[in-house]
Amino acid sequence: MHKQIINSETRICKAIFPNTLNANNSLFGGLIMQWMDEAAYIAATRFTKQRMFTHHVSDMKFIKAVVPNTIAEVIAKVVKADALRLTIKVTLIAEEMYDDNCYTAAESVFTMVALNEQNKPQKLQVHNLETIYY
Amino acid sequence: MHKQIINSETRICKAIFPNTLNANNSLFGGLIMQWMDEAAYIAATRFTKQRMFTHHVSDMKFIKAVVPNTIAEVIAKVVKADALRLTIKVTLIAEEMYDDNCYTAAESVFTMVALNEQNKPQKLQVHNLETIYY
Amino acid sequence: MHKQIINSETRICKAIFPNTLNANNSLFGGLIMQWMDEAAYIAATRFTKQRMFTHHVSDMKFIKAVVPNTIAEVIAKVVKADALRLTIKVTLIAEEMYDDNCYTAAESVFTMVALNEQNKPQKLQVHNLETIYY
Amino acid sequence: MHKQIINSETRICKAIFPNTLNANNSLFGGLIMQWMDEAAYIAATRFTKQRMFTHHVSDMKFIKAVVPNTIAEVIAKVVKADALRLTIKVTLIAEEMYDDNCYTAAESVFTMVALNEQNKPQKLQVHNLETIYY
Amino acid sequence: MHKQIINSETRICKAIFPNTLNANNSLFGGLIMQWMDEAAYIAATRFTKQRMFTHHVSDMKFIKAVVPNTIAEVIAKVVKADALRLTIKVTLIAEEMYDDNCYTAAESVFTMVALNEQNKPQKLQVHNLETIYY
Amino acid sequence: MHKQIINSETRICKAIFPNTLNANNSLFGGLIMQWMDEAAYIAATRFTKQRMFTHHVSDMKFIKAVVPNTIAEVIAKVVKADALRLTIKVTLIAEEMYDDNCYTAAESVFTMVALNEQNKPQKLQVHNLETIYY
Repeated sequence: MHKQIINSETRICKAIFPNTLNANNSLFGGLIMQWMDEAAYIAATRFTKQRMFTHHVSDMKFIKAVVPNTIAEVIAKVVKADALRLTIKVTLIAEEMYDDNCYTAAESVFTMVALNEQNKPQKLQVHNLETIYY
Repeated sequence: MHKQIINSETRICKAIFPNTLNANNSLFGGLIMQWMDEAAYIAATRFTKQRMFTHHVSDMKFIKAVVPNTIAEVIAKVVKADALRLTIKVTLIAEEMYDDNCYTAAESVFTMVALNEQNKPQKLQVHNLETIYY
Repeated sequence: MHKQIINSETRICKAIFPNTLNANNSLFGGLIMQWMDEAAYIAATRFTKQRMFTHHVSDMKFIKAVVPNTIAEVIAKVVKADALRLTIKVTLIAEEMYDDNCYTAAESVFTMVALNEQNKPQKLQVHNLETIYY
Repeated sequence: MHKQIINSETRICKAIFPNTLNANNSLFGGLIMQWMDEAAYIAATRFTKQRMFTHHVSDMKFIKAVVPNTIAEVIAKVVKADALRLTIKVTLIAEEMYDDNCYTAAESVFTMVALNEQNKPQKLQVHNLETIYY
Repeated sequence: MHKQIINSETRICKAIFPNTLNANNSLFGGLIMQWMDEAAYIAATRFTKQRMFTHHVSDMKFIKAVVPNTIAEVIAKVVKADALRLTIKVTLIAEEMYDDNCYTAAESVFTMVALNEQNKPQKLQVHNLETIYY
Repeated sequence: MHKQIINSETRICKAIFPNTLNANNSLFGGLIMQWMDEAAYIAATRFTKQRMFTHHVSDMKFIKAVVPNTIAEVIAKVVKADALRLTIKVTLIAEEMYDDNCYTAAESVFTMVALNEQNKPQKLQVHNLETIYY
């Protein structure tokens, strides 16, 4: 199971270009959420190999504004699985381009479910359910 | 104050075009979150006339998948204000294009803060603080 | 009929982010037209519940450049309906973020038609035709 | 002057990809208008070498829906210049990918003005004003 | 054949807007490649009227950074055809908006192939194969 | 040095959504190149902590079309450094969503240079130059 978690870990790196900025000249939070949702979706799909959907997002925290001259790395990792839901922790690590500073800029918890072609809930095809991994 | 809430209410209507779809042929959740964040930001800015940032999002619920032939309307409304934080309820109403059906497809609660040019927290310039409106 | 007009009114709010600017550092006119066309399309679809297309745009006026630190609200409203065409007035209201100023930045008139799946013109399914509402 | 018109002619070719489609599975009209505005802006800038803005668009006609398996070419050409305004004809030629058919899918007339850095109107730096070229 | 080359020549003009810039405030190279690929694809499709794919790109040279206040014109031209491959030269000409300077900012060579609906290679339906045109 | 290579490795995962497709219903090659350029840029910036630019791309090979129901992972890795140039290998790994198949769909070699604020070439601030790592 540990191997399955490692293999499903998903990273999206983005450089802060002007088209990612909001009116305050920092990284647009809506874009952070979009990247996080895509990362969570990919991690969930890799983990289950089923047709996954975002069901719920809790505790999306914007910790520090991300400014130009920064690299943003979104990391999605499965942290829990039960019969019907997958819990995925998603973190945005900001890294200064011309310095060695790194910090967690945003984080959140995604709950993903599997739906069939008629969008009806499906059991997750994973082993060792109900275990908390982190 | 009631007038200020009404005046700051913010709506973003979107038609479901192919460029809004995910791999499951339904509206991409990350895009819903992006539209919600922009609507919450505009409502907060209209309410305070200050430099607003998203601080926290709680309880983002995806209630029903939004499929093609649908119109999506994101509605952001201020529901609470205290000295430092504005609470905004954001709802996605889905409306079938060729039928009269409407349903709530997603909802969430955004907490917004005011920051100055150095990104330091500022008091909100609103009256009658600590009141819950809804 | 009055109620149908009110119910079909469509609003798209947008904050002026760097990715909306042209080479003159003001809101790109092509984007204004794109937002207006989407708003007109949604208003027309809500009004008729038919498969609508933009047929003609007249008198697209750019009245004042929209600069950063502005909120833009596109408002589309049905103003006339006859057997084959719907006329929709679309206005862009600009609102300064950190001030109370509002002004009409752009306006235009869209003519929409209904087409069937073979893209052949269809009669509009509306009552009280040929009436000018505004 | 004739040479200046030829040199300022501007073409934008686009293939119809899924991200260009509307809810009716044809090329989104708002995107056509966006491409036309960018083409008109470039043609005007090439002609005057001044800071140009779209002032007015008249008679935007959508003649035929553009469907997948089509190449779209937007062509902007200066057709008139007076002391303060440049008139530009913009045409969208649709060309079937796997056939030899070509047709005019949309056309419009853009009026462009020159503004200085304070967004005040400027005289156009062109010769032989008031002449109609086409 | 010469006429076929001229007719398939494809131009995409773009103005340098903030949403085209990288973190160094110059035109994002990845966007240049995207525009070049679309131009090469259109030129190849116009030339063969077959279902074309990019197979190989060689020698993509970024000669000079393209900065704001510039117009970029991507030009794709067929330079060679044999039984299975089309060779297309793509050039990015940069033109200063408020000056008469023009320079080649980037260039590359694309090799395109025809595939059928099952993505199997197809012979090109062109005459006078193996001829080098430029 | 080995640690520096590992730390600068950059991954961008993307799910194949309809807005990533070309006219042939497969992943648009221009978008692959855009993702690769952003990944190469980030890897180069992480490695040197200098202001990096793409100078040259060689041997961009599109090996297999990427179709819907696939996850794409772009991986950029530094493979060589000398006094003025960084060589970066970029690979696109395609992974079937609902199967265990993985394959290399595209690959290329990027050469990156450092420029100062006046866009003049700079020496790379790396150790053990001229070494080939892979």
